[in-house]
Amino acid sequence: MSAPHDHAVSSTVSLDELTQLLETIFTRHGTSAEVARTLAANCANAERDGAHSHGVFRIPGYVSTLNSGWVNGQAVPKVEDVASGFVSVDAGNGFAQPALAAARPLLVEKARSAGIAVLAIRNSHHFAALWPDVEPFADEGLVALSVVNSMTCVVPHGADRPLFGTNPIAFAAPRADGAPIVFDLATSAIAHGDVQIAARKGEKLPAGMGVDSLGQPTCDPKAILEGGALLPFGGHKGSALSMMVELLAAALTGGNFSFEFDWKNHPGAKTPWTGQLLIVIDPSKTAGQSFAERSQELVRQMHGVGLKRLPGDRRHLQRAKSLAKGIELDQQTLSQLRELAGE
Amino acid sequence: MSAPHDHAVSSTVSLDELTQLLETIFTRHGTSAEVARTLAANCANAERDGAHSHGVFRIPGYVSTLNSGWVNGQAVPKVEDVASGFVSVDAGNGFAQPALAAARPLLVEKARSAGIAVLAIRNSHHFAALWPDVEPFADEGLVALSVVNSMTCVVPHGADRPLFGTNPIAFAAPRADGAPIVFDLATSAIAHGDVQIAARKGEKLPAGMGVDSLGQPTCDPKAILEGGALLPFGGHKGSALSMMVELLAAALTGGNFSFEFDWKNHPGAKTPWTGQLLIVIDPSKTAGQSFAERSQELVRQMHGVGLKRLPGDRRHLQRAKSLAKGIELDQQTLSQLRELAGE
Repeated sequence: MSAPHDHAVSSTVSLDELTQLLETIFTRHGTSAEVARTLAANCANAERDGAHSHGVFRIPGYVSTLNSGWVNGQAVPKVEDVASGFVSVDAGNGFAQPALAAARPLLVEKARSAGIAVLAIRNSHHFAALWPDVEPFADEGLVALSVVNSMTCVVPHGADRPLFGTNPIAFAAPRADGAPIVFDLATSAIAHGDVQIAARKGEKLPAGMGVDSLGQPTCDPKAILEGGALLPFGGHKGSALSMMVELLAAALTGGNFSFEFDWKNHPGAKTPWTGQLLIVIDPSKTAGQSFAERSQELVRQMHGVGLKRLPGDRRHLQRAKSLAKGIELDQQTLSQLRELAGE
Repeated sequence: MSAPHDHAVSSTVSLDELTQLLETIFTRHGTSAEVARTLAANCANAERDGAHSHGVFRIPGYVSTLNSGWVNGQAVPKVEDVASGFVSVDAGNGFAQPALAAARPLLVEKARSAGIAVLAIRNSHHFAALWPDVEPFADEGLVALSVVNSMTCVVPHGADRPLFGTNPIAFAAPRADGAPIVFDLATSAIAHGDVQIAARKGEKLPAGMGVDSLGQPTCDPKAILEGGALLPFGGHKGSALSMMVELLAAALTGGNFSFEFDWKNHPGAKTPWTGQLLIVIDPSKTAGQSFAERSQELVRQMHGVGLKRLPGDRRHLQRAKSLAKGIELDQQTLSQLRELAGE
C-alpha cells in the first residue's frame, strides 16, 4: 500500500467510515468480529493521528499474514489472575491488542487496588503502534509503561550481526490541563515502518540509522531492508534499553525473543510472534499534590525553557484536524482498501 | 579529590578498610551510624567496581554538603505501607539509600506476594550510582528498575535552556550462569561526574555532550560546568526518557523536580533534593521457563552475534580484581580521605 501523498488525488473519509472499512477487511480475511473491532479501531486511530507508518499502510501486512496462516485471527485470549498485582494472558497465537482488551478491566482493578499492576502478554503478535496501548490508561488518571519486542533487525551496540527487534517503549501520564503526556519510541535508531516508507518513496535516510548486508553503514533504506539491519538509537544506551525490552517482553512474559520464531513456512507472514509487558501505576496512591497538577507543572516549565512541542503534540493536532475535517487518504490507497474489503 | 591515576604513587586498601575509612568520614561529619554504614558501603563498592565517578571522588561533595546543613545526615526514614503493591518513604531530607534500606524488606515482601511492587521515595538526596540500588534485587532472583531525578543541567531536546537532571535509569535482572544483567545509564549524553573528571584531567569531551553558557555546542568540560549544560543522549528519545524520569521520580513520589529546590543559602551543597522510584517484579510468577534460564539464553545469543561485553561486565571484572588484590587509590587521595576521617 502506498504511503500518503504519493498521489495527487486524495479523498476524505470519516473515522467511523475508515474503522468500518478496516473491520470489514479484517473479518473478510478470517478474524473474529471481536478481533476485527479491536484492530480496526487501533489502525484507524493511528491514521487519524497522522501516525502513517502504523496506519492503513499496515493493512496489506495484516492481510498477507492472516492469509499465510501464521497468526490465529480467531484466537480467544486466556486471562490468568496470577497475583494481586499480576495478570498474565496467553494470546493463543493471536494479536496482542485483543489480549490487552480482554485483560484490561482486571489490570485496572488491580492497579487501583495494589497501586501498581503488571500485565504479561505472551504468544502474541504486535504489528501496530504502542502508544494506543498506553494512552487510554492516562485518560483514566493512571500512569502506564509498555514494552514489546518484535523481530531480529537491530544490531546490538558492539556486536556484528542483528539480534534485537525495534523494541519500542511507550509511556503515558495524565496531566491537568490537556491531553495526556505520551511517547512511543523505538529503541532502534528508526522505526521499521519508516524505513519501508522511505524505500517506497525512494528517499535516503540520515546517517547512523542502519547497515547493509555486509554490516557497513548505509543511508539507503533498500539496503537496510534487503539483508541489512538497523542500529540502536543512542549507541550503547539505546542498545541496553533494547536488551531490557527483550527481557521484559519475552523472558518475563514467557513469550518468544525477537530471534526465536521461524515464519519461513508462512510466506507473507509479517507479524512478530513475541510478547508484551504493561506496567500500570495509580498515582493517587502518592503523598502530596495531585499527580496531574504536578505533570502539568513540568509541562509548563518545559515550555518555559523554550520547548515548542511536547511528545504527542503533533498527533493530537492531527487528531483534532482529522475529527473536524475527516481523514485524508489518496485515491489509490482508498481503492485498494475497498478492494480488500470486497466492495 | 583527585581522580584515580593522577599521581604516580598509589596504595592498595581492602574493601573493608576503605568502607571503614568512609564510615568514619561520614560519622565525623554528622551522619548517624546507620546512614554512615549505608553510604560508606555504597561508595566503597562503586570504587571497588571501578565506577570512579561515583566512588571516593564523591566524598568531598558529601562532606561539603553535610557541612552546609543542606541535608539531614541523621534523618530517620518514615516507611508507609500504602497498598498491597505500593510502599512510600519520606526520607526526611536525608539520603535516598538509607530510605531504600529501611523500606526494602517490605518492598521485597510485596513484590513476592503481589508479583510487582513499587517504592516511591521522596524528600531524598541521591548522590551515588544507581546500579547499587537495583543489583541486589537481581541477586535475589527479582527484576528491578529504578529512576532518580537530580538537578537542572540538561537541555530538553528542542528547548533553549536546561531543565532536566541527568536522570539515570537503572535495571537489573538475574541470569542462570553468571552475575546479574545490570545497566545504569544517565539520560544525559554524559554523566555529570564524568564531565567533572574530564575537567580535572584537562581533557576534551566528544561532540554532542553539551553546550556552553550561550547555548552553543562545546567539547570543553569546563565550559559545560561553568554556566553551560548537558544534552540528552539520543536526541528526542533520550529527552523523552528524561522527562519520564522527572514524572516517575518526582511527580509520582511527591518529591521535587530537578528544577525545584534552591540551595543558594547552603554554600557547598552538592546533593540534589528530589525523589526516586523503584519497581520490583517477581519473574517466578510468569508462566513458562525459568526467567534466569531465559535471560541466560539472551546473553548466549548476544555473544553469538559478536558482542564482546555485556553491560556490567567491566564492573564485575574490576570487582573480582579489587576483591583479590585490593582497591588501588593514589597516595594523595588516600591521604585526603584519612585527613577527612581525622586520622
